[in-house]
Order: sequence, then C-alpha cells, then structure tokens
Amino acid sequence: MKMGAGVEWMVHACITLACAPAGAPVQAGALAEFHGLPKAYLAKQLQSLVRAGILRSTPGVQGGFSLARTAGEISLMDIVVAVEGPADLFQCTGIRDNGVGAQLGMTSGRLPCIVQIEMSKAEMAMRKALAARTIAHLIESLDSGAPKVLGVTREWLQAL
Amino acid sequence: MKMGAGVEWMVHACITLACAPAGAPVQAGALAEFHGLPKAYLAKQLQSLVRAGILRSTPGVQGGFSLARTAGEISLMDIVVAVEGPADLFQCTGIRDNGVGAQLGMTSGRLPCIVQIEMSKAEMAMRKALAARTIAHLIESLDSGAPKVLGVTREWLQAL
Repeated sequence: MKMGAGVEWMVHACITLACAPAGAPVQAGALAEFHGLPKAYLAKQLQSLVRAGILRSTPGVQGGFSLARTAGEISLMDIVVAVEGPADLFQCTGIRDNGVGAQLGMTSGRLPCIVQIEMSKAEMAMRKALAARTIAHLIESLDSGAPKVLGVTREWLQAL
Repeated sequence: MKMGAGVEWMVHACITLACAPAGAPVQAGALAEFHGLPKAYLAKQLQSLVRAGILRSTPGVQGGFSLARTAGEISLMDIVVAVEGPADLFQCTGIRDNGVGAQLGMTSGRLPCIVQIEMSKAEMAMRKALAARTIAHLIESLDSGAPKVLGVTREWLQAL
C-alpha cells in the first residue's frame, strides 16, 4: 500500500509553477533540473495533470507548463487523483458471495458489505483532509515557515 | 495506490473467528472453504496476523486459528498494519534535496518538508478512523443490520 513518487513530484511542481512570474510557462526540462528528476517520467506526470485540468501545456519554444487555475483551486486531493487515479484504496472483492458461506446464505443481496463501508469511511477522512489543503495553503506555510524555499524558487524562475 | 485483498480477507476471517464457540480454533482450510479463498495464500495472511499478535495458532489435529485477544481489542488499523506493514502511504523521497533547487539552497535542513507534513496529516485522519473501529463494532453492525450473516457463520462453526 503505497502512493507513487509522482504525487510528491507533482505537488512540488505545482508549488514551483505557482511561483512563476505572471504564470509564465516553465519547460518540463527546467522543472526536472530544478528538482533533480528524470525528465521523461516527470513530463509524463505533468501530462496527467494537464489531462486533469490542473496544468496547462503551451506548445512552442517559449512554451511549457503553467497552472490552469489558481493555486487556491488546486487541492492535494486533485493531484493525488490525477496521478494515482480515482479508485478507492480498499477494493471490496465481494468474498461474502463466494464459498461455503455464500452457499449457506451469507450474502445479503444488494446491501454493501460492512467491511467495505468501514474502510470507505476511513478513506473518506483522508480524502477530505487532502481536499481541504490547496497549493495556496502550502505556499502560505512555506512563506511563514521556510521563506527561503520560495525565494530561491522565484529567483530561479526569473532567471530562466 | 491500492490496498491488497489480504486486508479484506483478514477482516472477514477475524469476524468469523470472533463467532467461534468459546474461541475454538478454526483450521485455515475450513476458513478458506467458508470464504471461497485459496488456502495457501489465506494461511500466509493468517500467519501475518499471528505475528502481529492478533491471532493465535494452535498446532495439532484439533488446532487452527483463533483470536489472540477480544474482538473489541482488534481494530481495522491493527489488521491493515499486520497485512500491509506499518509504512506510510506517502513516502517523501526528499526531492528538495536534489537538483538545481538544492544547489541554490532550497533544502531547509532538518525541517520536514511541507508536502510530507500535509500528506501525513491526511493519512493520519484515515489511520485514526481505522483505529477507532474494531471487530466488535463490525459484529454489532452485522447484528443489527445483517443478522443472517452472523447466524450462518455461527451455525457453520458449530457444525465443524
């Protein structure tokens, strides 16, 4: 049970793009260099965020990736879903419908399984927490707790 | 990002074992037949729960698996950790310490990354919800919402 590193990469990429002056596009190669990541795989993840409507891709020599909406409208949940897909962590395979138990009448028809219900409730608590935190919140936290991160990012972007 | 089917199997197995008369041990083969699951892989998962102190394994012809503690002392979180391991869903790979960004001074030393902090907070919400629900809660819910499940299970266990 593990979240792919793509989530970490894309949250950092969104923070970086939110610092771009006037939302100017940044090339995948530059983002890869800045974060020390493999360009091809990073570009693939960036495209996932374009498909999810989080990033915009601008073609051309001056092109690149930029935020498709404001940092306050991009939640951690949006990024997790864009990278990992919308599927629930817990997948009920319906074992109560199998085996001797099912033959003896264990299945409760269309009623959802109690295990599924409880696992979904717990997962929903995580999803709600992720949906409540946006890139804007993370930038606010960096601004007060680690302003150097934003300073370095903005200077680097201006020098591109 | 997916939880293995072993979690589902083990929650159902714990519910079943909680219904055993006087906590009598049930053989892995019987549990596999009851839930329509492959015996070898089920036995492997049951052993994970033994190692975690959730189940007790009794050797011998009359042996098998039983709960090592009361149903009220076995949370869904205990089962998830026993099957999936204790690692966090989100693993920070520390990308702020790599690349041009790090060379320019992005790293904030020993301070944890804001992305790690926010992802952990959200995951903690799920873990808390899972820790708050025990096998006893699930049996209570079945008792009021789907009593047939418990009736069938108890009758089958008594006939073993």
